Amino acid sequence: MIHIVKTGGKILSSAAAADTFLQNFKLLSGAKILVHGGGNKATQIAKQLGIESKMVEGRRITTSDLIEVVSMVYSGINKKLVARMQQMELDAIGLTGADLNLIEAIKRPVKEIDYGWVGDIVAVNGKRLQSLLSQDMLPIIAPLTHDKQGHLLNTNADTIASSVASALAVEGEATSLTLCFEKIGVMLDPDDDTSLIKEIDELDFDAYRAEGIIADGMIPKLHNAFEALRAGVEKVFICNPQNISSIEQPDFVGTEVVLRSTKSIA
Amino acid sequence: MIHIVKTGGKILSSAAAADTFLQNFKLLSGAKILVHGGGNKATQIAKQLGIESKMVEGRRITTSDLIEVVSMVYSGINKKLVARMQQMELDAIGLTGADLNLIEAIKRPVKEIDYGWVGDIVAVNGKRLQSLLSQDMLPIIAPLTHDKQGHLLNTNADTIASSVASALAVEGEATSLTLCFEKIGVMLDPDDDTSLIKEIDELDFDAYRAEGIIADGMIPKLHNAFEALRAGVEKVFICNPQNISSIEQPDFVGTEVVLRSTKSIA
Repeated sequence: MIHIVKTGGKILSSAAAADTFLQNFKLLSGAKILVHGGGNKATQIAKQLGIESKMVEGRRITTSDLIEVVSMVYSGINKKLVARMQQMELDAIGLTGADLNLIEAIKRPVKEIDYGWVGDIVAVNGKRLQSLLSQDMLPIIAPLTHDKQGHLLNTNADTIASSVASALAVEGEATSLTLCFEKIGVMLDPDDDTSLIKEIDELDFDAYRAEGIIADGMIPKLHNAFEALRAGVEKVFICNPQNISSIEQPDFVGTEVVLRSTKSIA
Repeated sequence: MIHIVKTGGKILSSAAAADTFLQNFKLLSGAKILVHGGGNKATQIAKQLGIESKMVEGRRITTSDLIEVVSMVYSGINKKLVARMQQMELDAIGLTGADLNLIEAIKRPVKEIDYGWVGDIVAVNGKRLQSLLSQDMLPIIAPLTHDKQGHLLNTNADTIASSVASALAVEGEATSLTLCFEKIGVMLDPDDDTSLIKEIDELDFDAYRAEGIIADGMIPKLHNAFEALRAGVEKVFICNPQNISSIEQPDFVGTEVVLRSTKSIA
């Protein structure tokens, strides 16, 4: 089983948190790929550099100035993670979608909103990733793709992780996808850890969404999860980075996403 | 022949200059590795972020704040170069010394001066680089190494290029090393292009140095050049990036560095 794990860039904000996460990540059996974010740090550095955030309908626009910052910040986080993993005897290699043409995207077409230098993925080179993994390399992927026209593009890290897992599944690999975030999983009440939803399928998702229990950022996250499952990814989890090592355990703490839950079938 | 070329980060300051350089670089036959700098941009971004340059005896100290900036800026330049090369159908992969443990260094020991997070190279993994080249990958290397203790280190790009060329020569590869900089080569008078020294050997170097004709940054550059030759690198050139494609031509514009010039032997 190849484990594709996505975590936020925040885990690098404290060296201790990063080390705990990486130690747990290392415990996962077999081949692994880490996809990381970094939006918070990019926002902070952009602000320090006097680059104003351009927001449209609550969503940040990746202006020409911002893609410069985002490229720097994400690539910097990426290489710091590589150095830490090398210390832990994990043979990490830090990549973006541009490297080896791994993830090709198109600049998002302008409809009502011009999102700027944001990339929608058109192709993931699963064979190339398989080849790297077969050489015992551990790819660390920054949330950047490219348009094959010489431009880096800002792409959501969850979407990259889901697309990478899907591409490997299509190549016949058994894969799991884990999307880590600040909460312990999908919850009925985001402030109450006892309300954790241990398993969620598409019917549940539709129902929770209709009730407003699942909203905002959790919607695209679950879309990414279901898309991976439909592409043949075997297991999809949503959990906190500190519980990452439990995805292979019966006492997993988090939400497992499934197409049809056993309860529905029964 | 594997061509290892080092160029300054400045070539990316204008898209047109970068494209011209990369088009010329692409013309070189066979396997290639590009090593780039980026100190100017790092200085500029550090200044914008309010990080003061700490200088001791005219040399910049890589403080903890500065290594953060340097890591971001160099990695960002690196990935931009990768995206441009992919556009040109060159299968680039952006690396630091931390990736795949390619270049291990030690934090420079403190004697009179504490240079901070600066790395002195202790080992280059020539076999791993050979393996990447044999897969038709084109490594783009940022001037960062690591200490295997989880830290990225700032390392001179000329030294990285020289060490990489040497490591490949030691593995039995025929290699050339080209150190590009703003002038057309080593000159008797840096302001007079007609004073270009077309060939320089160690005896010449000692003589020019004694006369003060070769000074400052040209001294370490030539040390790197001679070190590569002694390690078995076949050809070493110093030239302007815009003349890079001429290193394989009889009308080469620049300085060829040799251990013993034919004129001395004759």
